[in-house]
Amino acid sequence: MTSGKKPWGGRFKEPTDTLVEAFTASLDFDKRLYRYDIEGSIAHAAMLARQGIIAEKEAVEIERGLRDILDDIENGNFTYSNDSEDIHMAIEKSLMERIGQTGGKLHTARSRNDQVSLDVRLFMRDHIEAAIRLVKDLKSALLELAKKEIDTILPGYTHLQKAQPVLLAHYLLAYWEMFDRDQGRLENCFQRTNVMPLGSAALAGTGIPIDRDYVAGMLNFPAITKNSMDAVSDRDFVAEYIFDAGLIMMHMSRFCEDLIIWSSEEVGFVEISDSFTTGSSIMPQKKNPDVAELIRGKTGRVYGNLMAILTLLKGLPMSYDRDLQEDKEPLFDTVDTVEGALCILSEMTKKLKFDKERMLAEAKRGFATATDVAEYLVMKKLPFREAHEIVGRIVAYCIEKGIGMQSLSLEDFRSFYEGFEEDVFGCLTVEHSVNARNIPGGTSRTMVLKRIAEIEN
Amino acid sequence: MTSGKKPWGGRFKEPTDTLVEAFTASLDFDKRLYRYDIEGSIAHAAMLARQGIIAEKEAVEIERGLRDILDDIENGNFTYSNDSEDIHMAIEKSLMERIGQTGGKLHTARSRNDQVSLDVRLFMRDHIEAAIRLVKDLKSALLELAKKEIDTILPGYTHLQKAQPVLLAHYLLAYWEMFDRDQGRLENCFQRTNVMPLGSAALAGTGIPIDRDYVAGMLNFPAITKNSMDAVSDRDFVAEYIFDAGLIMMHMSRFCEDLIIWSSEEVGFVEISDSFTTGSSIMPQKKNPDVAELIRGKTGRVYGNLMAILTLLKGLPMSYDRDLQEDKEPLFDTVDTVEGALCILSEMTKKLKFDKERMLAEAKRGFATATDVAEYLVMKKLPFREAHEIVGRIVAYCIEKGIGMQSLSLEDFRSFYEGFEEDVFGCLTVEHSVNARNIPGGTSRTMVLKRIAEIEN
Amino acid sequence: MTSGKKPWGGRFKEPTDTLVEAFTASLDFDKRLYRYDIEGSIAHAAMLARQGIIAEKEAVEIERGLRDILDDIENGNFTYSNDSEDIHMAIEKSLMERIGQTGGKLHTARSRNDQVSLDVRLFMRDHIEAAIRLVKDLKSALLELAKKEIDTILPGYTHLQKAQPVLLAHYLLAYWEMFDRDQGRLENCFQRTNVMPLGSAALAGTGIPIDRDYVAGMLNFPAITKNSMDAVSDRDFVAEYIFDAGLIMMHMSRFCEDLIIWSSEEVGFVEISDSFTTGSSIMPQKKNPDVAELIRGKTGRVYGNLMAILTLLKGLPMSYDRDLQEDKEPLFDTVDTVEGALCILSEMTKKLKFDKERMLAEAKRGFATATDVAEYLVMKKLPFREAHEIVGRIVAYCIEKGIGMQSLSLEDFRSFYEGFEEDVFGCLTVEHSVNARNIPGGTSRTMVLKRIAEIEN
Amino acid sequence: MTSGKKPWGGRFKEPTDTLVEAFTASLDFDKRLYRYDIEGSIAHAAMLARQGIIAEKEAVEIERGLRDILDDIENGNFTYSNDSEDIHMAIEKSLMERIGQTGGKLHTARSRNDQVSLDVRLFMRDHIEAAIRLVKDLKSALLELAKKEIDTILPGYTHLQKAQPVLLAHYLLAYWEMFDRDQGRLENCFQRTNVMPLGSAALAGTGIPIDRDYVAGMLNFPAITKNSMDAVSDRDFVAEYIFDAGLIMMHMSRFCEDLIIWSSEEVGFVEISDSFTTGSSIMPQKKNPDVAELIRGKTGRVYGNLMAILTLLKGLPMSYDRDLQEDKEPLFDTVDTVEGALCILSEMTKKLKFDKERMLAEAKRGFATATDVAEYLVMKKLPFREAHEIVGRIVAYCIEKGIGMQSLSLEDFRSFYEGFEEDVFGCLTVEHSVNARNIPGGTSRTMVLKRIAEIEN
Repeated sequence: MTSGKKPWGGRFKEPTDTLVEAFTASLDFDKRLYRYDIEGSIAHAAMLARQGIIAEKEAVEIERGLRDILDDIENGNFTYSNDSEDIHMAIEKSLMERIGQTGGKLHTARSRNDQVSLDVRLFMRDHIEAAIRLVKDLKSALLELAKKEIDTILPGYTHLQKAQPVLLAHYLLAYWEMFDRDQGRLENCFQRTNVMPLGSAALAGTGIPIDRDYVAGMLNFPAITKNSMDAVSDRDFVAEYIFDAGLIMMHMSRFCEDLIIWSSEEVGFVEISDSFTTGSSIMPQKKNPDVAELIRGKTGRVYGNLMAILTLLKGLPMSYDRDLQEDKEPLFDTVDTVEGALCILSEMTKKLKFDKERMLAEAKRGFATATDVAEYLVMKKLPFREAHEIVGRIVAYCIEKGIGMQSLSLEDFRSFYEGFEEDVFGCLTVEHSVNARNIPGGTSRTMVLKRIAEIEN
Repeated sequence: MTSGKKPWGGRFKEPTDTLVEAFTASLDFDKRLYRYDIEGSIAHAAMLARQGIIAEKEAVEIERGLRDILDDIENGNFTYSNDSEDIHMAIEKSLMERIGQTGGKLHTARSRNDQVSLDVRLFMRDHIEAAIRLVKDLKSALLELAKKEIDTILPGYTHLQKAQPVLLAHYLLAYWEMFDRDQGRLENCFQRTNVMPLGSAALAGTGIPIDRDYVAGMLNFPAITKNSMDAVSDRDFVAEYIFDAGLIMMHMSRFCEDLIIWSSEEVGFVEISDSFTTGSSIMPQKKNPDVAELIRGKTGRVYGNLMAILTLLKGLPMSYDRDLQEDKEPLFDTVDTVEGALCILSEMTKKLKFDKERMLAEAKRGFATATDVAEYLVMKKLPFREAHEIVGRIVAYCIEKGIGMQSLSLEDFRSFYEGFEEDVFGCLTVEHSVNARNIPGGTSRTMVLKRIAEIEN
Repeated sequence: MTSGKKPWGGRFKEPTDTLVEAFTASLDFDKRLYRYDIEGSIAHAAMLARQGIIAEKEAVEIERGLRDILDDIENGNFTYSNDSEDIHMAIEKSLMERIGQTGGKLHTARSRNDQVSLDVRLFMRDHIEAAIRLVKDLKSALLELAKKEIDTILPGYTHLQKAQPVLLAHYLLAYWEMFDRDQGRLENCFQRTNVMPLGSAALAGTGIPIDRDYVAGMLNFPAITKNSMDAVSDRDFVAEYIFDAGLIMMHMSRFCEDLIIWSSEEVGFVEISDSFTTGSSIMPQKKNPDVAELIRGKTGRVYGNLMAILTLLKGLPMSYDRDLQEDKEPLFDTVDTVEGALCILSEMTKKLKFDKERMLAEAKRGFATATDVAEYLVMKKLPFREAHEIVGRIVAYCIEKGIGMQSLSLEDFRSFYEGFEEDVFGCLTVEHSVNARNIPGGTSRTMVLKRIAEIEN
Repeated sequence: MTSGKKPWGGRFKEPTDTLVEAFTASLDFDKRLYRYDIEGSIAHAAMLARQGIIAEKEAVEIERGLRDILDDIENGNFTYSNDSEDIHMAIEKSLMERIGQTGGKLHTARSRNDQVSLDVRLFMRDHIEAAIRLVKDLKSALLELAKKEIDTILPGYTHLQKAQPVLLAHYLLAYWEMFDRDQGRLENCFQRTNVMPLGSAALAGTGIPIDRDYVAGMLNFPAITKNSMDAVSDRDFVAEYIFDAGLIMMHMSRFCEDLIIWSSEEVGFVEISDSFTTGSSIMPQKKNPDVAELIRGKTGRVYGNLMAILTLLKGLPMSYDRDLQEDKEPLFDTVDTVEGALCILSEMTKKLKFDKERMLAEAKRGFATATDVAEYLVMKKLPFREAHEIVGRIVAYCIEKGIGMQSLSLEDFRSFYEGFEEDVFGCLTVEHSVNARNIPGGTSRTMVLKRIAEIEN
């Protein structure tokens, strides 16, 4: 029994040329660039006419032909010729079939090397913008949820051990900050991507007197590349985008990890909406957080794509090498993965339901406010290390007695340190603890509301 | 203008369920496992009947139904139902449509967790074997070429600087050794993959009295997995295969790097057959080694797949998590990449044409046999470091005079060191140099022929 | 204010030669190979004498000198000369200072290229063996714990959601299986490492009539490398070891993830011994699982080392290139990381304390045995899918009533399906559920004990 | 015989606590942060005094103590206490030994979680600036060389096959562009790093009324972090810096690859200065480009560090986890690697000597100007595809005759296409070819000089 897709070994009988064609062809994946290829060609033809390199009439014909092809592709009526190795040839061949010899003038003053760079940059502009939009949506979802949960108290964790109570809103806004940095990185990447490479030709520029700035203007690029050899071999912007996407995935993986743990029966802080989980026909209490797990898992995929592009580029001689063709699949896969994950995580976030009672109960367990008592003593001018030691002894006493600190009398407190006064009791609630952290960046209700206001203005 | 494949952002209008279905579905890629899924199910049904868990007649019906589905898929007549999230459900649903309620008995004592593990192991058995076969083919191609080029002398390089003459056959057999180790690794990996996981069920095994060994026997597995929790969460074999493939790619990338440099006009040692290069319509001397470049570039892709699977597995809690679904695409992509590259490199290797004169001429340039003179002195009992110093002075003298060492008289030699005798002239040819390295693993004709004989027996 | 270790920029004033020396030197890290370098040199010298290439007396002198150096290094009395770029030169120079010109004969018929390959292989033999020993220790620790916890019931999870009860022993043995596979991989890697490369010289072998097999015998290698060009450029064994270590880290990271979650206050299944946690002076309930977190975190480090060596090797031309010097630091770091983590995880594992009551209580929550009831029906010949549907309805009914299945009467069961009989009540306990999974690889007490017996024999 | 650094296995006899201390301690590497730790503490103490939390006198004492420690460390007089697990504790302990109880007040309103974040950010600010400075130096070196080589013609390559002649200056400026983008990325990264985290405390902020902005001002930070939970768990800036460094290494690896190939005897375009190569005592023509090879090889190391930090961060639960301690070694190693490589490559670049005759000769070989003839025809209004076909036929004719195109008469040209005129002969020189590419970004002397002018202004 052999596999569905025959291992390559089975192809040995095919003539070499067929093997090589299959191995080197990129049409299968780069057809995705068709719109950008056509868009770029239309601008290029218009410029050629404007410069008098081709006739105005020819440019019109070329544009018409290209728009026909575009329609056909979008309507599913385009047949890719068997012998086209890539989308650029497929479109050019079809153009020549449609408008004859004039089609042969389109490639004037252009090489596949600069053409593919242009197409990828146009593609990436759209998708960096899409990613920015989706990151903003996720930030909005987090912000809305934070506003809604402004009064919910969560046990804050370090080392997955309860540390100090915080506002759930503060927790959610921590992710807002992460995605906000991601947005900044994407915006920086957009600047470096948004540069027009056409005119670099194969590697040295062209001898035909084209107007690169005109093409840039038509395609809405604020700048043109400054060195033709660099332009045809540069894939920095691809690597940078994939890295940025990797950090976005990483941030999402952390949020998903929290959600997976929180939605386990043992913790029970959150319920993920049914649409984002799968169940079991006979274990109705089981809600598998599949979507969160997949987002976490897909992080590896984007890291892998990053490693692929970085390895590819290492040690490549100047200028264009065919290795560079391998940039597209990691890029496309990253685009699909990060956009899909962002989109779905926003939707999932909006529908999260928190069990506030359980969170609060857990926040109160243990000696969550011991730190607050220590800070109380520090404010009474005790050295920090000494204050900690005193509170440690109080807690140990309470554990021995099996009571909480709120059960202690002022006498009791004073038996550990004379400086305690009536106001110590104000430090013992989780609500006080949260609101005491009233410095910029802290978890107090005031500060969290202030941050929300800042964000909204 | 928007992109061809709409960014996910555009999908917001779709109802959540559709989004989630698209995000979590694996049918698109795991349909590739159909044969293995059917093969496993047939064996499972036969065992259920043998154990009296289902009726013999039912097993026959199930097998018939599954074989029908197999035929339909292979003939392109199978319609995947829209709501099937994976290949396993698609097949089971179709089975129930074909044979009714009996189809519902197939999944007895089985879970998707152990089923998918079985399918992947069956798939990988085929493809590890395919990779071994293709590695053997490449080794054969190298061996044949080595036999053919047994008299060709090549300048051996370190640091891409000419060091000492070697036989081209010796060079080619160096790659034979690398791929031989790759074969060993694949064989080890096969052992660890070739273990039958069915019966592990969701995670704990099944309470239904199945016979796991019988299924293993039917599917030609020499052993069964020993722990159900491990079995459903183990993807070691996937990672190991991808790593092995990564080393194969790395070895190919090194050979390709050499071929790319050697086929540059400046070096000119090898001509790659036209089928494996692309040219330029107006620069006929240009033969771009596209295939070699793509193999080199695709190395990054497999490294990326390795990083993807490793990242995926890091820190996953026991036992099955949905993250594991993400194992398939890096695996499939690796299979296609490494099999394609091996196949095509074998073909390319067979058709390499070496420029022996140019190689020989380059091998003779410089002072390629200086080491031989030093070794001559060592054999006269001079300490190695002293011998090197003397030869260094001789070479410096020759350079100053603008002559080669073969132009020196015995007098000349003796003016540097008295111990030189007539036989020193025997050391000065590249042929002598090559054949002097007559120890196991060395480049002498005798030793290379001996290694060829060893390999062939 | 400038940094402690001055950025390189500050070094501009240094003469270039110093800069280059610092950049290219490896002594700082490769000094760790001193023992192996000396061991290899002693064998090499003995062989040279046996072959009559140096005098017997000279070999004795060389050996004595090298042993002196070894003593000095081990006692901290060795001064590395400033101008030694690597450990090989440092030792050779010191040897010449100690025994004079005879020291200059040691490097006869040897190059640094084959010497460093030998040293690394000797180093790795020791460390692969160490890793195997440590993996075995960890397996033992898991086995002992499994034997001790043979009666402890744990809720088994998929998707971090409770699925079915399992034995804690079964869970622990799942990790035993993982580490057992790791051991197998290390053993395979050992075979491929355990090959003697000396005699390959710079790249072509040597013209001096050495006896490679004799050296192999002295150094306890069962085989010698077969091709000198391959031998000096091969680092497969380094990459393979790092990959194997990566999988070991990955397996440990999964166990640690479980321990981190289980030791959170919310889950509370396990208590990690104080020695392996850090606390807080004022929050005594806080036991941060630092060691488990660090092991999980250090997984990234080994993955990184793997990527470093793979990237390094990609596309390198034959044969030796200086890039290869960069193999050592990722190797050494991996050795330290994996050995340290294995060692400490064994110790930590031995001291784990499980809260059996809590585990059992959680195992009983929900409808953990619903699957068992379904399997009961399947044994009554109901199709699997139908059985699942019936049990689904029963569970839904119980949830509505707020009761567990054990509260139902036989009548109640029969109202859902007539075929229920008295024996259904036997299916409702977690103990029954565990023991019902009585097939090889399953979680029943019998099967787990059988596996333990298999392992121990 | 056992290894120099004992495998961990040998440590089993040590008490567990010692093992754990060794495993968890970071002092060994984080001592490198001492300056930043002290600098941050001084600012923190000053702020505490200003806020009236400690006395002014105490702050003065603390500062004096810290400055003493700084002096001692820098002069090598500081003894790290055995029981200090990290640099922060080592300094605090020493402070308390020096100034007594007052030292215990320094840690008021601070946690190690925010302290370490501050230290790393201060460290990185210095090193991002150092990297920017070194990138600028390298750009300058390239620019100077480009100005010097403004008249040197180089055969431009694609696929390592000669394609079209270019100016060596144009080639060098291509790298200038790459490093200029690197500088942009570093500057962006600096912005995101340059944010003050102190005051975030363990995770929730502090209840003590500190003034975060004052500390930011003292330490010259333009902004403070906005969310305490994010601040203690954020390592984005570390990952971003390592990625930026990875691209820098990649760019350098490409330049080094070119230099390695160009300095091979077969190509012979460049001579790397002796200081950056190693030779062979008996093969004086051999100049191994060790430095270039090491830079190429070290690229893998930085990629590995990137993978380490990304893996580390994936799926970490909020907020601080001990895994994060593992950020420092990949960061420090990246800093050393990239700064060292940049520094040394600048020096090497300055001393490159090009063989202009050989470059020119190679640029003229083949039919380097065939493209120019085709462009000549395009300017005569022939469609591009047709022009290419005609020139292809001319070249084929020349090859058959064994002549170059410059040997053809006008008649000869016209026999292929009537439209050829006298001016075609102007297209046949490499000088014309280079200068014809006279569009922005092209390789003409005019355009290259224009770009140089742009850069310099």
